[in-house]
Amino acid sequence: MDRIKVGIVGGTGYTGVELLRLLARHPHAQLVAITSRKEAGMPVADMFPSLRGHTDVRFTTPDAAPLADCDVVFFATPHGVAMQQARDLLAADVRVIDLAADFRLRDTATFAHWYGMPHACPDLLAQAAYGLPELNRDAIRAARLVANPGCYPTTIQIGFAPLLRAGGLVDTGHLIAACASGVSGAGRKAELGLLFAEASDNFKAYGVTGHRHGPEIDQELRRIAGLADDDTTLRCLFTPHLAPMIRGMHSTLYARLTAAGQQADLQALYETAYRGETFVDVLPAGSAPDTRSVRGANVLRVAVHKPAPDTAMILVVQDNLTKGAAGQAVQNMNLLFDLPETAGLEIPALLP
Amino acid sequence: MDRIKVGIVGGTGYTGVELLRLLARHPHAQLVAITSRKEAGMPVADMFPSLRGHTDVRFTTPDAAPLADCDVVFFATPHGVAMQQARDLLAADVRVIDLAADFRLRDTATFAHWYGMPHACPDLLAQAAYGLPELNRDAIRAARLVANPGCYPTTIQIGFAPLLRAGGLVDTGHLIAACASGVSGAGRKAELGLLFAEASDNFKAYGVTGHRHGPEIDQELRRIAGLADDDTTLRCLFTPHLAPMIRGMHSTLYARLTAAGQQADLQALYETAYRGETFVDVLPAGSAPDTRSVRGANVLRVAVHKPAPDTAMILVVQDNLTKGAAGQAVQNMNLLFDLPETAGLEIPALLP
Amino acid sequence: MDRIKVGIVGGTGYTGVELLRLLARHPHAQLVAITSRKEAGMPVADMFPSLRGHTDVRFTTPDAAPLADCDVVFFATPHGVAMQQARDLLAADVRVIDLAADFRLRDTATFAHWYGMPHACPDLLAQAAYGLPELNRDAIRAARLVANPGCYPTTIQIGFAPLLRAGGLVDTGHLIAACASGVSGAGRKAELGLLFAEASDNFKAYGVTGHRHGPEIDQELRRIAGLADDDTTLRCLFTPHLAPMIRGMHSTLYARLTAAGQQADLQALYETAYRGETFVDVLPAGSAPDTRSVRGANVLRVAVHKPAPDTAMILVVQDNLTKGAAGQAVQNMNLLFDLPETAGLEIPALLP
Amino acid sequence: MDRIKVGIVGGTGYTGVELLRLLARHPHAQLVAITSRKEAGMPVADMFPSLRGHTDVRFTTPDAAPLADCDVVFFATPHGVAMQQARDLLAADVRVIDLAADFRLRDTATFAHWYGMPHACPDLLAQAAYGLPELNRDAIRAARLVANPGCYPTTIQIGFAPLLRAGGLVDTGHLIAACASGVSGAGRKAELGLLFAEASDNFKAYGVTGHRHGPEIDQELRRIAGLADDDTTLRCLFTPHLAPMIRGMHSTLYARLTAAGQQADLQALYETAYRGETFVDVLPAGSAPDTRSVRGANVLRVAVHKPAPDTAMILVVQDNLTKGAAGQAVQNMNLLFDLPETAGLEIPALLP
Repeated sequence: MDRIKVGIVGGTGYTGVELLRLLARHPHAQLVAITSRKEAGMPVADMFPSLRGHTDVRFTTPDAAPLADCDVVFFATPHGVAMQQARDLLAADVRVIDLAADFRLRDTATFAHWYGMPHACPDLLAQAAYGLPELNRDAIRAARLVANPGCYPTTIQIGFAPLLRAGGLVDTGHLIAACASGVSGAGRKAELGLLFAEASDNFKAYGVTGHRHGPEIDQELRRIAGLADDDTTLRCLFTPHLAPMIRGMHSTLYARLTAAGQQADLQALYETAYRGETFVDVLPAGSAPDTRSVRGANVLRVAVHKPAPDTAMILVVQDNLTKGAAGQAVQNMNLLFDLPETAGLEIPALLP
Repeated sequence: MDRIKVGIVGGTGYTGVELLRLLARHPHAQLVAITSRKEAGMPVADMFPSLRGHTDVRFTTPDAAPLADCDVVFFATPHGVAMQQARDLLAADVRVIDLAADFRLRDTATFAHWYGMPHACPDLLAQAAYGLPELNRDAIRAARLVANPGCYPTTIQIGFAPLLRAGGLVDTGHLIAACASGVSGAGRKAELGLLFAEASDNFKAYGVTGHRHGPEIDQELRRIAGLADDDTTLRCLFTPHLAPMIRGMHSTLYARLTAAGQQADLQALYETAYRGETFVDVLPAGSAPDTRSVRGANVLRVAVHKPAPDTAMILVVQDNLTKGAAGQAVQNMNLLFDLPETAGLEIPALLP
Repeated sequence: MDRIKVGIVGGTGYTGVELLRLLARHPHAQLVAITSRKEAGMPVADMFPSLRGHTDVRFTTPDAAPLADCDVVFFATPHGVAMQQARDLLAADVRVIDLAADFRLRDTATFAHWYGMPHACPDLLAQAAYGLPELNRDAIRAARLVANPGCYPTTIQIGFAPLLRAGGLVDTGHLIAACASGVSGAGRKAELGLLFAEASDNFKAYGVTGHRHGPEIDQELRRIAGLADDDTTLRCLFTPHLAPMIRGMHSTLYARLTAAGQQADLQALYETAYRGETFVDVLPAGSAPDTRSVRGANVLRVAVHKPAPDTAMILVVQDNLTKGAAGQAVQNMNLLFDLPETAGLEIPALLP
Repeated sequence: MDRIKVGIVGGTGYTGVELLRLLARHPHAQLVAITSRKEAGMPVADMFPSLRGHTDVRFTTPDAAPLADCDVVFFATPHGVAMQQARDLLAADVRVIDLAADFRLRDTATFAHWYGMPHACPDLLAQAAYGLPELNRDAIRAARLVANPGCYPTTIQIGFAPLLRAGGLVDTGHLIAACASGVSGAGRKAELGLLFAEASDNFKAYGVTGHRHGPEIDQELRRIAGLADDDTTLRCLFTPHLAPMIRGMHSTLYARLTAAGQQADLQALYETAYRGETFVDVLPAGSAPDTRSVRGANVLRVAVHKPAPDTAMILVVQDNLTKGAAGQAVQNMNLLFDLPETAGLEIPALLP
């Protein structure tokens, strides 16, 4: 089989280098172009010496890159770039996977509010599949344009989905997600708050007056629960924290159980929900997953608890750059091209 | 004024070395004895080179230590030691401050359940003041025996107290505390899980099936709320997490607001509650405190939020070894001896 | 081709879990047994959750393990274990690769001095190949027993070899190696000095009065230089330091250049020496490698400098657990069985 | 006694906040002005919440700041600022302590070469005392303008001084300093290489083709050795490394011993040299200091070794922001005003 021809727009950030790492050993894909206006001409391995010996590709200007000849193009760009270029690529029969937020929110007003720009192609939104395979696999297979989910939303949806799908088990109006992310989640940006001397040996909440992932979380939890997009009876209170680690995301989820929920066997519910899913690992009862158990791996580990008779607590970990970004994007690519879903992704975590 | 003569039992752990650091520059106290059966004869500064030049004291055996001649003895020992020795010291007119849990729980059955040993002196429990000065100052001043609070309980009580004291503002049956602690909180113990190569670049919940601080938290929150000890209508769901930092504790607290609570000005409530408290710093509205802002300092910083109309979220940070342990113990000593409460404790945090 | 049957003795430490990670995706090898008296019966993935989904193997007692039926057995044990069991395995036609020090030192008195035990099988020493493929490939191919090198010695030999092999370029009596290692290099041992709260945000030299890798370094540098084992004119002053990172090793090597050495083109010398070596990457002139560029990868990166007219400085990085231990062991296995030398090892580093 | 009136120019960086921390509890000094054009109007404690409750001072514009009314002005600015403003302040009888490099190098051509700008006031250079009290106390006491040393040069001078002052003990042409610094040493600058996700879990050499501290080191070592400024027979090969810690600096120094040096009692030499120095702690023979033992403290700890008969190795640690910058600046202030040299600086290190 010929290898799929892959292009990357952007690629100088952390999701970019993670994509490059994963594609370097993907058995069925081949990177043919990566663009960066600023770094055009530079070998990728000069910017990321970890890739020396694994790729000879150089950054090129967007104009010079043969993106229209690719089978698929990933956008590992800031928000707002993919929506400018997706239409032309789709017209050239190129599949598009956006790792940014351009196609995540179905409501353009909400998008404009949180991302500070009008949406450039509202008509394409309807075509975009939300790229969380374990919850939306069929739609992704059928799509040509995939919105790769945010990192926090991935953990929170996987964590709440079995409860919400069952229906009637929890008070959906008061879900709580207290989450912690490694610093790479903020991207490869020269900002004071991300400096080693600022972020090390430190822990804090952030985005306390509102975070962009909030509307994405609520939108998708509603869909999972079978509610309308504008049904505000479902609400998840989301608090992100910054933890002094490079990679890793940990979500501690709380839901108040209804009388029916208090009777349910939650452990069985989760084991059943994710049976057969390679990339969702439901731990034995009583467990607490640690983020290092998924470092560099495309897997979520989930533990289910009932710390009080009327409360469910779900613990979810992932690597924010792998299952939370680039790994999930590759998984989506595999689905788009009918490849084995796990191709290139069966990598054990790096521990210690 | 003569300096207060201070003895320390234990002192080879992290609360011990923190006590030594604070006492080294206390203007009104002087360390005269520190015991460690295992390290007897060794200068304290050999074990902790940070103290070279600041103390000449050596560890002595418990028998050789003139503890009965001290004005106050701190127990920086494992749980269960102080309750064996407190009676004799009190009889010799020595004040006792226990940094372990021996005198924190008023119910001996609960103590026995969580600490795996019967209580050695139930009669002394009634004499013990719970040493959280901002919430219990008068009792401490009047006491001869002080139970220094646990680190998590300190943040959680300070965080919830204004809401609970006001009465009728929150659903006390479903308080939630999602907390993260630096690794020093686990003590200076040679355990695999505390190794650098295990705990670094990692984040996880622990104690998920129950943690010793749980009953202490509920007991004291009930008292703050004016409820009886056995009134189980108040319940705080407490989830501790281990964060890859040496010092620092962050508590994210959630409470469902009643109709009355939704009308309240929470920011004003907290500012009023802690006005005049040197060691509780209520941040301006909209803030998120970081743990490094209290590194090595005897202060709690608190921020109050209303992330949903019916929910209060309080963020609290402290240094688990200072205000969470040894600093609070020194503050209690100051109260016991009518010293200025801030003596020896007005130390800015070490940042960066 | 049938897969090689692999056994591991030990395997509960960091070199063990790293071996398991690498073998999990080795195309030509299959783990069939792993022993641990203490953990017998426990699934490997229970101890190391990073391996959940990648292996079903359980620890077994040494007696129950079918080691004699394996093609190769790795010893990821403390020093002194392999030399007790190697003879029987070799007699059963099993290849043996020892990741500890039992077969590294050719002089049994030196071994006894540094490792505190007499050597159990001096006669086998002559059969053991020193397993640094880039410098000793032919001997390894021909061997049945391989002594996997120490982590520090690997970097120092690779760093000095081109200078020493050329002959006459440097003052071999005063080589200096100032090295820093991540904490995992000390092993998975419950020791106070390795705790997160002790080792984080800290840097120190250790082994300052002598380190076990010293005699190994001198022995092998002599061989590389073509000197006799007892020729003490060659001497490398070796100073290890502990750096607050999980993985990674950095060696800064200094050699005084002779008149001939000052004329030499060192960059060309190194590029020529390692041309064609997949796992030794000579960086462009002027570079400084960082350890993260090899995190989890089986590669050494080397930079050559002449900071003064009469001094060469070579910078070498590796992952102490991969090329410095388990990765190199797999590379040796590949050589022993005429597999492609890079099989299972072409993994890009995990960055960031 | 009236408090000394202190001004700070700059102060938004790490040396600035460290100065503020130390001055906050200095018994004889009072901050009266701090300038930052960019942050004018902002309370210092808003930028650095660690100082909440410790200072009410606000940043002001340079024009509005009453610097000429101060007794002393510290420049915690980028290189090149102090030399523009020092003349006017000195004319107003204000003492000046520059924490940057403007007055460190006596040769203006060297300054221009390394700092990329011509020197603005060469005539003032002769007045400037090099502010390393333990080696230059009398000159500092007599000065009105102090050049606070670089962090690396402080450790290297303190480390080599006893050997160099004795004369004839070491080969001064081939001194070697392999040093590691915490990331705060690079300043509070938004640069990619200083990000947590780049600098954590990583170790590397930098400045390998030349570092600004090189000429300062050689200049001062020559003076210590009694050599002329242009005597290039003394040369120190200096290699800085970046270690993943916030604070801390470790220097491993090597010197080849002459025949006379091999006879000398190095331990006694160092103990004698620094007897009576509060801020230089010579450790017992056989020691290895760790950087955390000086975290936040104004002290250097030094260990002396002879790892080979003809080689001395000296290990030196300091906190790069305290004794390596702001603490030393306060020590210099104390000398300038005939205060007790240790005033405000007798702070134990923060450990753990």
